[in-house]
Amino acid sequence: MLYCVQMDITVPHDFPADRFAALKAAEKETSQALQRAGKWPHIWRVAGRYANISIFDVADHDELHAILAALPLFPFMAISVTPLARHPSAIG
Amino acid sequence: MLYCVQMDITVPHDFPADRFAALKAAEKETSQALQRAGKWPHIWRVAGRYANISIFDVADHDELHAILAALPLFPFMAISVTPLARHPSAIG
Amino acid sequence: MLYCVQMDITVPHDFPADRFAALKAAEKETSQALQRAGKWPHIWRVAGRYANISIFDVADHDELHAILAALPLFPFMAISVTPLARHPSAIG
Amino acid sequence: MLYCVQMDITVPHDFPADRFAALKAAEKETSQALQRAGKWPHIWRVAGRYANISIFDVADHDELHAILAALPLFPFMAISVTPLARHPSAIG
Amino acid sequence: MLYCVQMDITVPHDFPADRFAALKAAEKETSQALQRAGKWPHIWRVAGRYANISIFDVADHDELHAILAALPLFPFMAISVTPLARHPSAIG
Amino acid sequence: MLYCVQMDITVPHDFPADRFAALKAAEKETSQALQRAGKWPHIWRVAGRYANISIFDVADHDELHAILAALPLFPFMAISVTPLARHPSAIG
Amino acid sequence: MLYCVQMDITVPHDFPADRFAALKAAEKETSQALQRAGKWPHIWRVAGRYANISIFDVADHDELHAILAALPLFPFMAISVTPLARHPSAIG
Amino acid sequence: MLYCVQMDITVPHDFPADRFAALKAAEKETSQALQRAGKWPHIWRVAGRYANISIFDVADHDELHAILAALPLFPFMAISVTPLARHPSAIG
Amino acid sequence: MLYCVQMDITVPHDFPADRFAALKAAEKETSQALQRAGKWPHIWRVAGRYANISIFDVADHDELHAILAALPLFPFMAISVTPLARHPSAIG
Amino acid sequence: MLYCVQMDITVPHDFPADRFAALKAAEKETSQALQRAGKWPHIWRVAGRYANISIFDVADHDELHAILAALPLFPFMAISVTPLARHPSAIG
Repeated sequence: MLYCVQMDITVPHDFPADRFAALKAAEKETSQALQRAGKWPHIWRVAGRYANISIFDVADHDELHAILAALPLFPFMAISVTPLARHPSAIG
Repeated sequence: MLYCVQMDITVPHDFPADRFAALKAAEKETSQALQRAGKWPHIWRVAGRYANISIFDVADHDELHAILAALPLFPFMAISVTPLARHPSAIG
Repeated sequence: MLYCVQMDITVPHDFPADRFAALKAAEKETSQALQRAGKWPHIWRVAGRYANISIFDVADHDELHAILAALPLFPFMAISVTPLARHPSAIG
Repeated sequence: MLYCVQMDITVPHDFPADRFAALKAAEKETSQALQRAGKWPHIWRVAGRYANISIFDVADHDELHAILAALPLFPFMAISVTPLARHPSAIG
Repeated sequence: MLYCVQMDITVPHDFPADRFAALKAAEKETSQALQRAGKWPHIWRVAGRYANISIFDVADHDELHAILAALPLFPFMAISVTPLARHPSAIG
Repeated sequence: MLYCVQMDITVPHDFPADRFAALKAAEKETSQALQRAGKWPHIWRVAGRYANISIFDVADHDELHAILAALPLFPFMAISVTPLARHPSAIG
Repeated sequence: MLYCVQMDITVPHDFPADRFAALKAAEKETSQALQRAGKWPHIWRVAGRYANISIFDVADHDELHAILAALPLFPFMAISVTPLARHPSAIG
Repeated sequence: MLYCVQMDITVPHDFPADRFAALKAAEKETSQALQRAGKWPHIWRVAGRYANISIFDVADHDELHAILAALPLFPFMAISVTPLARHPSAIG
Repeated sequence: MLYCVQMDITVPHDFPADRFAALKAAEKETSQALQRAGKWPHIWRVAGRYANISIFDVADHDELHAILAALPLFPFMAISVTPLARHPSAIG
Repeated sequence: MLYCVQMDITVPHDFPADRFAALKAAEKETSQALQRAGKWPHIWRVAGRYANISIFDVADHDELHAILAALPLFPFMAISVTPLARHPSAIG
């Protein structure tokens, strides 16, 4: 099942820079593991903003939530989730 | 260059049904030709709404606009466009 | 899989009353068939508005979309869909 | 009387983690007691967000407010309340 | 039980003036009957707009919805409903 | 002259609890004095939120502002003011 | 008593042009009579839009509403009203 | 004096196509005359929408309003105006 | 040239009270000097909120920006600016 | 390729003034270097606000993002990006 997920990240100015850098590194590692596992087939940067638009391919809502809530940067994210169905004009 | 495009379609209740059906058929044909040409690599239905989320892969803003403005259902669409850059965590 | 769906209905004042009554009757029939089939376990009226909040229990996004898009009053509805996961505090 | 209540939780990044964990544990206990008492018949997680959609079944507005305002996480919640009436198409 | 209800009325310019006048007269009669019955204790005009802010005092959500949905001008109204609880600072 | 005033209160999590308790007690005292004086004829709790909907009956805009700006919790409030005129359907 | 009033005018494209011209002429006459009477001390055009920002000086909310609701273009206006109090920094 | 102006155009589906084509041709002519006169130094298409972002260079608010209100497509436009000052980092 | 400017002021609860008092006194002095100079012909309090609606009469956008950005409370303000043109119905 | 970019800057009141001054000086230097390189052909101040509207002329979305994300004040900015296509009425 596919979901379009947009994540907007806000870093409080008084959050320690080194702790954030560590979270960011962990986030990258988690994201790439999920990409390699086929759970997170697309991730794009929203040009000009600290945000991404992603496609997730998971078994169900519970798996989606478990993945997103476990992201190291989850506490700094505003997230919107859009469930995607097959489009009747899609080919292939 | 990639763009995320969301199209929300509204059909006025007093628009002739047969004319709309013709436009819809033309829309499907246009969309599939663009998909086959690699310009419109993804199109998903937003579950529960007469709307889609699509990814376009075109040369530049002018080509994107030319494609969207020529869609048969363009006059019935509310469109939002998000330019997508490469994400530093993306693999492959 | 569960979804919370809110449907807000707007009837254009110049839509023929008898045609709308027929659509409304068909809507009720469809809704009750889906309730009996266990696909639409809850439907509540939003007090004071021509709108409902519903819970759907379906196999996936495609089935949800197929059901909603086939509702007789779908062309008159503004719909929002929220995918629901299991809550860690839920009992039973 | 039924109410649909959505609660969105925001945790300030500088709030002590152990105090929040204690509040969260208390919240779970309170929620489950209310569920067992039949006051809070449904609680679902909004997939991808620190939020829930719940149904409350209480005597009146005063009881609803008393319950919500006493939740341990109430100070961290943005809450919206929708009163639910019986839907004419509901079966059973 | 008390509810604060705001009703904003929009009249389509092509709706027949005499039919609207008849609905408006019926609305006034209905409103005054409900006021006399103690169901609609307050109705105020929002200064400068075709809108009112009202307080309803009814048994439950179902009665509120039945009353509002039966108003002659209901099809022309955008309605928002706020359930009101007793305030701890209220006297008398 | 009547005004409908909605006050939404937000307490910063790092504001000293005892100072807030003192302000809250002072707020209650001020509110009840104004109620007894007939300036603040109605105050209701918005069910489920730290907010109230109130009716003020004062001489003019200046008196309204003087009263609201002097409330002990004013610095924590988001306030909206709606001037109320007599409704042509109001009885009594 | 002073009020800041913003009026945004929308003309339906299928409204007869001559009838609108007549309403517009009547509106101008009404506005100028009220200006001369000192009730409408300021009216400015919002640059680039069919809208105005005005200051009204009237006895109370009822008089404001009576004036606005009687404007010939009232049915085409979206109106927002802001009650203005004396500012402590104002001179003269 | 510079202004950033965004114009979003909506064409009602039941507006005669030939009349709109005539207005559009007139709009183009007007726009190009203003561009040649140096009043409208920039006009860009918002990619994917029937909208433009423009820069106007005129004497004052009155001239801006006169120009915009006289555009053949003005009745179909939603317009937002942003006054632009010199930026302290601008070179040249 | 006239501008309608709305300023909404937010004071962070942890900003030192004496420093804010000093800024406020400086703001009043600046405002009154500009009023006496004819640059700031009107300033009104938005009843019930820490906000004002003002009219500025300055040479151009640059002067407006210079004035507003130099206000002692500018860092605490959310500001909206509306350029005002002469209204065709204005008398005198 | 052209982009219209609006940047709104918010400075937290408890951010050290000298550090912000340093970032601001660096921002100016960066901006002017990009202007001289032809990447940032226009930058205007939004009159009355700590914000700018800019035009960028870069190779693609990736270059735009790289430039914006590297701005010294980027962490304090809310940014919106609008891709600009050639307008059919543009001359020259």
